[in-house]
Amino acid sequence: MVLKTGEEYIESLRKRGPLTIYMLGEKVENPVDHPIIRASINSVALTYDLAHNPEFSDLMTAKSVITGNTINRFCHLHKSTEDLQNKVKMLRVLGQASGTCFQRCVGMDSLNAVYLTTYEIDQQFQTDYNQRFIDYIKMAEAEDWVIDGCMTDPKGDRSKRPSEQQDPDVYVHVVERRNDGVVIRGAKAHQTGAINSHEHLIMPTLSMRNEDKDYAICCSVPADAKGITYYYGRQSCDLRRLDETEAGDVDCGNPLFGGQECLIVFDDVFVPNERIFMNGESEFCTRLVESFSAYHRQSYGGCKVGVGDVLVGAAASIAEYNGVEKASHIRDKITEMIHLNETLYSCGIACSAAGHKTPAGNYLVDLLLANVCKQNVTRFPYEISRLLQDIAGGLFVTCPSARELRNPETREIVEKYLVGAEGVDTLDRIKILRLIENLTLGRAAVGYLTESMHGAGSPQAQRIMINRLSDLEKKKKLAKNLAQVSD
Amino acid sequence: MVLKTGEEYIESLRKRGPLTIYMLGEKVENPVDHPIIRASINSVALTYDLAHNPEFSDLMTAKSVITGNTINRFCHLHKSTEDLQNKVKMLRVLGQASGTCFQRCVGMDSLNAVYLTTYEIDQQFQTDYNQRFIDYIKMAEAEDWVIDGCMTDPKGDRSKRPSEQQDPDVYVHVVERRNDGVVIRGAKAHQTGAINSHEHLIMPTLSMRNEDKDYAICCSVPADAKGITYYYGRQSCDLRRLDETEAGDVDCGNPLFGGQECLIVFDDVFVPNERIFMNGESEFCTRLVESFSAYHRQSYGGCKVGVGDVLVGAAASIAEYNGVEKASHIRDKITEMIHLNETLYSCGIACSAAGHKTPAGNYLVDLLLANVCKQNVTRFPYEISRLLQDIAGGLFVTCPSARELRNPETREIVEKYLVGAEGVDTLDRIKILRLIENLTLGRAAVGYLTESMHGAGSPQAQRIMINRLSDLEKKKKLAKNLAQVSD
Amino acid sequence: MVLKTGEEYIESLRKRGPLTIYMLGEKVENPVDHPIIRASINSVALTYDLAHNPEFSDLMTAKSVITGNTINRFCHLHKSTEDLQNKVKMLRVLGQASGTCFQRCVGMDSLNAVYLTTYEIDQQFQTDYNQRFIDYIKMAEAEDWVIDGCMTDPKGDRSKRPSEQQDPDVYVHVVERRNDGVVIRGAKAHQTGAINSHEHLIMPTLSMRNEDKDYAICCSVPADAKGITYYYGRQSCDLRRLDETEAGDVDCGNPLFGGQECLIVFDDVFVPNERIFMNGESEFCTRLVESFSAYHRQSYGGCKVGVGDVLVGAAASIAEYNGVEKASHIRDKITEMIHLNETLYSCGIACSAAGHKTPAGNYLVDLLLANVCKQNVTRFPYEISRLLQDIAGGLFVTCPSARELRNPETREIVEKYLVGAEGVDTLDRIKILRLIENLTLGRAAVGYLTESMHGAGSPQAQRIMINRLSDLEKKKKLAKNLAQVSD
Amino acid sequence: MVLKTGEEYIESLRKRGPLTIYMLGEKVENPVDHPIIRASINSVALTYDLAHNPEFSDLMTAKSVITGNTINRFCHLHKSTEDLQNKVKMLRVLGQASGTCFQRCVGMDSLNAVYLTTYEIDQQFQTDYNQRFIDYIKMAEAEDWVIDGCMTDPKGDRSKRPSEQQDPDVYVHVVERRNDGVVIRGAKAHQTGAINSHEHLIMPTLSMRNEDKDYAICCSVPADAKGITYYYGRQSCDLRRLDETEAGDVDCGNPLFGGQECLIVFDDVFVPNERIFMNGESEFCTRLVESFSAYHRQSYGGCKVGVGDVLVGAAASIAEYNGVEKASHIRDKITEMIHLNETLYSCGIACSAAGHKTPAGNYLVDLLLANVCKQNVTRFPYEISRLLQDIAGGLFVTCPSARELRNPETREIVEKYLVGAEGVDTLDRIKILRLIENLTLGRAAVGYLTESMHGAGSPQAQRIMINRLSDLEKKKKLAKNLAQVSD
Repeated sequence: MVLKTGEEYIESLRKRGPLTIYMLGEKVENPVDHPIIRASINSVALTYDLAHNPEFSDLMTAKSVITGNTINRFCHLHKSTEDLQNKVKMLRVLGQASGTCFQRCVGMDSLNAVYLTTYEIDQQFQTDYNQRFIDYIKMAEAEDWVIDGCMTDPKGDRSKRPSEQQDPDVYVHVVERRNDGVVIRGAKAHQTGAINSHEHLIMPTLSMRNEDKDYAICCSVPADAKGITYYYGRQSCDLRRLDETEAGDVDCGNPLFGGQECLIVFDDVFVPNERIFMNGESEFCTRLVESFSAYHRQSYGGCKVGVGDVLVGAAASIAEYNGVEKASHIRDKITEMIHLNETLYSCGIACSAAGHKTPAGNYLVDLLLANVCKQNVTRFPYEISRLLQDIAGGLFVTCPSARELRNPETREIVEKYLVGAEGVDTLDRIKILRLIENLTLGRAAVGYLTESMHGAGSPQAQRIMINRLSDLEKKKKLAKNLAQVSD
Repeated sequence: MVLKTGEEYIESLRKRGPLTIYMLGEKVENPVDHPIIRASINSVALTYDLAHNPEFSDLMTAKSVITGNTINRFCHLHKSTEDLQNKVKMLRVLGQASGTCFQRCVGMDSLNAVYLTTYEIDQQFQTDYNQRFIDYIKMAEAEDWVIDGCMTDPKGDRSKRPSEQQDPDVYVHVVERRNDGVVIRGAKAHQTGAINSHEHLIMPTLSMRNEDKDYAICCSVPADAKGITYYYGRQSCDLRRLDETEAGDVDCGNPLFGGQECLIVFDDVFVPNERIFMNGESEFCTRLVESFSAYHRQSYGGCKVGVGDVLVGAAASIAEYNGVEKASHIRDKITEMIHLNETLYSCGIACSAAGHKTPAGNYLVDLLLANVCKQNVTRFPYEISRLLQDIAGGLFVTCPSARELRNPETREIVEKYLVGAEGVDTLDRIKILRLIENLTLGRAAVGYLTESMHGAGSPQAQRIMINRLSDLEKKKKLAKNLAQVSD
Repeated sequence: MVLKTGEEYIESLRKRGPLTIYMLGEKVENPVDHPIIRASINSVALTYDLAHNPEFSDLMTAKSVITGNTINRFCHLHKSTEDLQNKVKMLRVLGQASGTCFQRCVGMDSLNAVYLTTYEIDQQFQTDYNQRFIDYIKMAEAEDWVIDGCMTDPKGDRSKRPSEQQDPDVYVHVVERRNDGVVIRGAKAHQTGAINSHEHLIMPTLSMRNEDKDYAICCSVPADAKGITYYYGRQSCDLRRLDETEAGDVDCGNPLFGGQECLIVFDDVFVPNERIFMNGESEFCTRLVESFSAYHRQSYGGCKVGVGDVLVGAAASIAEYNGVEKASHIRDKITEMIHLNETLYSCGIACSAAGHKTPAGNYLVDLLLANVCKQNVTRFPYEISRLLQDIAGGLFVTCPSARELRNPETREIVEKYLVGAEGVDTLDRIKILRLIENLTLGRAAVGYLTESMHGAGSPQAQRIMINRLSDLEKKKKLAKNLAQVSD
Repeated sequence: MVLKTGEEYIESLRKRGPLTIYMLGEKVENPVDHPIIRASINSVALTYDLAHNPEFSDLMTAKSVITGNTINRFCHLHKSTEDLQNKVKMLRVLGQASGTCFQRCVGMDSLNAVYLTTYEIDQQFQTDYNQRFIDYIKMAEAEDWVIDGCMTDPKGDRSKRPSEQQDPDVYVHVVERRNDGVVIRGAKAHQTGAINSHEHLIMPTLSMRNEDKDYAICCSVPADAKGITYYYGRQSCDLRRLDETEAGDVDCGNPLFGGQECLIVFDDVFVPNERIFMNGESEFCTRLVESFSAYHRQSYGGCKVGVGDVLVGAAASIAEYNGVEKASHIRDKITEMIHLNETLYSCGIACSAAGHKTPAGNYLVDLLLANVCKQNVTRFPYEISRLLQDIAGGLFVTCPSARELRNPETREIVEKYLVGAEGVDTLDRIKILRLIENLTLGRAAVGYLTESMHGAGSPQAQRIMINRLSDLEKKKKLAKNLAQVSD
């Protein structure tokens, strides 16, 4: 059976060889059971469990274009604009169910981008990368892998190209070429779900020139490959997760689910030939980067909308708990949250509906509209979050810890004074307030805000693309025609 | 041949019986040749001419679902979500080509809304409105009609229902019922392209109750029906159109194209039974109003985007003429204009792609997303227009008239001092500046700004729908699940 | 008596020698009685009449620091931060009373800027410009002059300095030096109230270098000097002013008051020595431009706020006339209009309160805050205007002309159907709608929107100053201190 | 000597009787040395130390209007509009120096509000509250007290008045009246700096009616009074403060300074007559609340601007460290941050400069402009924070902990890969990134964002005041005059 359950996925993580992971100054021996890491694993596991849930299985699965098997959509090559739209809908459902980043879309987006790029390289250079990659996809489908799409290099001095850096390793590159493969060195930063993955699908991070050929490397290595070290990124309110009590759960806001970002260091890692999908064809880095970015910018029009639904729901819940749900300004602010959130969704759907078939046969989103989508994602979640803070009232940043509610000395007094509308349980009110803290300042804010800003490329990257893709010359012609400028 | 040319369309207007039209205190005897009206007719004529243009004929035409004939898309019942998207694309093309409102979409949107509503009325009441309406559509297709979708009543005192008004006539209603038809009285305000239409398809303007049955009337009358009077709305800079010289053309900004808004008064107009499509079934007013509004709110995600392209083009042109096209802040502002404009387009496409088949068989847009689309249209064009004014520099409001450039006494001096970047013709620069005036303050601003605000319903109308359609209860459940509130 | 009345001011305009004025292709022989020009003269006349109005005379007048006489504040050298604040308050009152640009502040701002700059030039070069200028101010005070602060050159190719232009005349410059004075040539564009002034106080438009010395000229010439030609700028809806009937007044929106912008060409105009206040001291152009700009950017925190009050009042009036003044979303939008308007006022007051004494002895606003003030003025009026259009409903762009209300054939029907809330006169409703058109699209929109954008420097000019004046190094130090970066 | 040093202040806290404090489920026995609390005490201590710093002593001190002594400005009754402006400047300096909330302004604002209100009560009721309060102020000055202005009740069901609540204690009220004083019960929520204060100056939280007389109580009790319990509010990233190592300091972002919010419960606390300043005069609750709110809304135009300066500095620092400080989009975003921040400052200065003398003799800010100031503070800091996150890049949420930089196993690798522009120390870069996390998501974000939203009243509270104070009738008259509506 191809479709793993969440439980089977977690088991598969345990079966990997040992990983070298550093977090908070120490080596983590058992990542799967570490409370901080486990919350992020739970989010990924949802992508497996919902595939078995009849309500969502249509969205969560697809028929493989390679084998015809029913597979998890995260392993799927999109074969229509409807597929592209279904991807967005699936991500929205997962954002709704996890309230955070579930980490698996980078892999899906890199699968599709590498697929179309290898085909185009082969067309020009008579290489056989695409067939290799099809074989790779077969394994991914069969094993129901989580793939870490591994793109962003640390970059060092940003005013210099890879080959000009003082330390060449700040971009991943080939340091040795053998008959049976290559050895790579370097690091990838901001790697979402790195430790929760089975494979790292490594891609170059920007357009490369001839002199950067060693950096034009696309390949895959298993998460437990020799030479890899993980440095766990710490995030807002991370330590609350260490309090594994019920009170700790309350103060976490979202006790079950979290995200994960790591720095991955590749210290002379060997890659066998069959896992190499680009090797020096620097002409195609731009195509790979731009198509991957477009897919991933589309993704944000789904996943962040799902989390946005949680913010809207939190706003409506706390308004009710505070007894102000009928105030016209509250209703209007909630309407604005919905409006902004659905605008993002519209952008996700539109770049999908306007997608097109690539020469390789899979479908790619409309590049301009995908960039427009992401650009809005760098703005509206911040305003949605601000509106939620407005509606919440200030208690979510001044509320005593839930331990005060467990302590018999203090419980009654705290419950007495933090009471809300009649009939509302004070603890429920506090739980929603802590969820709001989590979403707007805490662990989930990292994903909902900062990741919305910088994930899939920072705002300026989209602006450059929007400008380039907009056909200004044609628009000038329109204006001049109407003004009767001969020109 | 079903597809008229623009020229044939204009001829068909001349063939109508005489219309009673008042403008600027006088009766207009020959509307087709009146310079103010003619500019608006030119815009409508584009919808005919482009159907014959091979570059656009795919978008501009469709196969009738009734007869199988190739017809103008403006007469079409949408038969797929692709049709809905093509409608948006067609409107964008026309906005680009006219730089203003081309007035014909209200008819297309009312055709589709009345079609689906009559079907649903028939299902409930065993009436035969739908068949009557199909016959009507056949004529519309065969004659390639411009239909004025006629919805907005003057409304009088807005705190009262139709049947409570001091003067019952401020809403169109039935004043006499005969065997062969009904007599109606009242008025419709803000009627886009009223005089340029062949038919007025009259619809109720809001939800009606039992006691408002006389107001629950949907029917059609020809533009030259006995008892109709037109009051031409005057608009910003309208008088410039009266200067029919070359200099006048320059100062018009957009010499060829304009829009049109009228107050239509129905003074006891007879409607035969075969043109009545709802008659007292007040339960279905909401369905008719909401589906029409949704179609029309979608429209704005096309037509205003096309005009937005003209604003972008005007910005890029004037930047070039001023010699500042490479300044980073200019480039960034143009990028922002494009970004906002493409966001509107994304909303137009998304509500189309998310459309669904109605019981009657035609396709309806997603109601929530169509409202989201229009809500954005009440905002972004204002910002796009502001950015264009920023980029333009102040000359578009301080420039001497073009007559100074025709007057040999003054021409050389004005040309000398209004010179721009080297090699740019001063007159061309002025033409673009006047186009910018036209788009942001003048005749086209009425369509691009105020109509974007109030056309297809004012902003608050969309907010009410967005709130109602958003399933807040489900969203509250999502938040409570994550916070582990039992509830 | 120093303080003229409005009537005396108008008489003083008639007493000037003949001016050469071109408008709409013709020479204007009698500007004072030309209906388009007269509306702009009426606005200036308010600055005289209100000085005699006991309610406003405290604000409108001041004690001269030179003679001790009571003078119109527009001729005043500010002698305290209270004076600077009173200037802002005076401008707000005039904006409220005229609903448009009253044109006289440019002169006040140039008086203060030239005063402090001439003093500083004298300190460095032992010239006697300041004494000359004091003599000039005495005349300005005694004659209660309107001075046109004359700064903006047409600029030609903006990528080149004045001395590099193909045509040297696109910047005003000295073409002949005589014992008794200089001869200047060139033009000034966008000259607010040019024809309504007694004097043109000419200033360089930007920082100059050594090689631009001929362009570093500051001097004054009378409005009727030999060699001056005026080209009247045409503006949105200008032709409505030509309809001098009561119906024309209604359709003008603001029948009495308007603005004025001209291109002034100086064709070898002689300037006697006593009217020269800078002559080649290019080092001081920056000081003159920056101080003038700061004063003038402050001004916008007063005059536009006054016009903003009219927009707020129009919003509240039309809401009442439409019968929706109690709707919560209407109230909220009006609150937002007020909030934005008062934010602008706060900026006008703050840069005044933070002002300081110059070496010359008069007071200068805080440069940073004055630029911040103007930057907001390039944004908020557009949003205030958008909100007014929202509240107004669409009738202000679809309403028949007022002539239909004078025509006995049509009057009753138009009144019947354009009726508003009970008890409201339909004509009153239309008058307010036309005022709204005037303020947001028509003649006053030029002043309230476009002039807010470009007057006193375009937005980017303020951004450059804001960046330069903000002491980033100190702010970096603050952050590093807190983060305990040694640095 | 009246002016304490920071050290003396901390000593004075130790000298208080024991406080009952709960935090994280436990009693805190020694708050002064608790690492979480200590950071907030350090911020308050700055308000003492800077008074001794010659650079700031002019701002930080004032001459008492009561005794003529030089006192800390936080104990001062403002005696001029200059004083009001100096308050704003002082708060800006402290925001710059602490990067967080320094907690002492609530006391200053309540001193001034209670002073003017007691005077007005006395005038009407021949009471002697004002003299009592002057005696109280003398002590505050002499002891250089931190006073906790204690206003916000928990409020329970917000749709009900105090006397209608199920539990009357959700508003502080008098439960017993004795000859020598009263006994009060209830709680105050969101109490900034509660534990760091010497006194709680209790005020009613809203307008009261006759039936709410027991709630119309204004009085003061010492922080260590019998019957008071403190519940420490937990906040984003609070646990990082518990890591008292150098690495912990780095990860705190702002190792020295923090804020503090508590729930204070008054369980039958006795107040002697001489500390009662209102007792049942419900007519004056509105005056007290509105004047306190206005003072406190003004405060935000100072303190948040100072913190905003730190955000600007952090942006400029990280841009430099990343090597992108010259990119035009980076410069433009920093300019926007400055612009927004200085707009807030302008609002703080303007409501001060427009202040007026009260009947009691101290100065009160302009109520309308103070509300406008705070309304902007509920918006711009969010946008400033968003821009900082944009400029920062994503590393501030993915960076490994500083312990990895202390661990010899990992240090070199982390330093190698997190390198920035040449010459920049990697640890310095990380310190600034952690400061950015602190300011936009962590502990300081609570103060800079959420407190900006809800402190001194939530946004809707200001909108109600802005609407009420704006004299709409006068503005309607302006519009009608211009439109020549007789009315």
